[in-house]
Amino acid sequence: MNLEKYIRVIEDFPVEGISFKDVTTLLKDGEAFRYAIKLMADEIRSKDVDLIVGPEARGFLFGAPIAYEIGVGFVPVRKPGKLPAETLKYEYELEYGSDSLEIHKDAIKPGDRIAVVDDLLATGGTILSAVKLVESLGGIVVHIGFLIELEELMGRKALSKYNISSIIKY
Amino acid sequence: MNLEKYIRVIEDFPVEGISFKDVTTLLKDGEAFRYAIKLMADEIRSKDVDLIVGPEARGFLFGAPIAYEIGVGFVPVRKPGKLPAETLKYEYELEYGSDSLEIHKDAIKPGDRIAVVDDLLATGGTILSAVKLVESLGGIVVHIGFLIELEELMGRKALSKYNISSIIKY
Repeated sequence: MNLEKYIRVIEDFPVEGISFKDVTTLLKDGEAFRYAIKLMADEIRSKDVDLIVGPEARGFLFGAPIAYEIGVGFVPVRKPGKLPAETLKYEYELEYGSDSLEIHKDAIKPGDRIAVVDDLLATGGTILSAVKLVESLGGIVVHIGFLIELEELMGRKALSKYNISSIIKY
Repeated sequence: MNLEKYIRVIEDFPVEGISFKDVTTLLKDGEAFRYAIKLMADEIRSKDVDLIVGPEARGFLFGAPIAYEIGVGFVPVRKPGKLPAETLKYEYELEYGSDSLEIHKDAIKPGDRIAVVDDLLATGGTILSAVKLVESLGGIVVHIGFLIELEELMGRKALSKYNISSIIKY
């Protein structure tokens, strides 16, 4: 099954010059969605993970079903103020200004084996923040899985310490 | 399996007087998460649905795995500006001010049988917006499924036209 044909490319979204990869056209196709989740889960299953971690909000769309398929729990990484219990925050730089992500402090125990999942690898900023949060809590990031990778943005370089997989490459 | 014991109740979040039901403690337990999704999927499976629809962001955490389990697609309902293609917007009233949600116009075809899923039923405002968006596109809402229902807020009343299920009741 050629999953790339289920991705809709939208030019100049959210800003001019960006060629946005829209995953909603894959999500709404039951067969393509199921196949994509199975492929992503297969990359992770053998790594004996304790938990899947995924950033808000598109990371939830892939991370939660992968966790379900493998039979482990899912830990959300969210924008500030969304998680109700005690959190750890990580601030990261954007082209203009900065942004931050949070994780529940009790979501991960030292030594837990973690796969971090998101829909798309661009420069790697968001996923690296999620990875830093996991590691700050003592978790071991054994895999980072994406549906899509934008190879020319070289996000793999920022994540070169880690074991990475992606299903669709641009 | 008593799923209620996996829900963490946090008082005065996000504002004073609210007794917040934290689902992250259920999500991170692989067995409890799997069991919850199976129960929610079982309520929907027999209704012969074409798609699952869920609102951002906690609706993704339950809606996407339920779609995966049943073998149908998932359609996200999102805050304005997040969906890249042409959208339909629905504005709804909050206690102070208003909020709005969007759906891709081409996500649902007239006659599609839809189950709408979210983590929690309170007054029903968010889910009713998602339902209105589905119906505006000609979709038929055959089921609305929640993990948690806050019975005293009487959200069921706002949704009395629909077939509703919830797994944990407070």
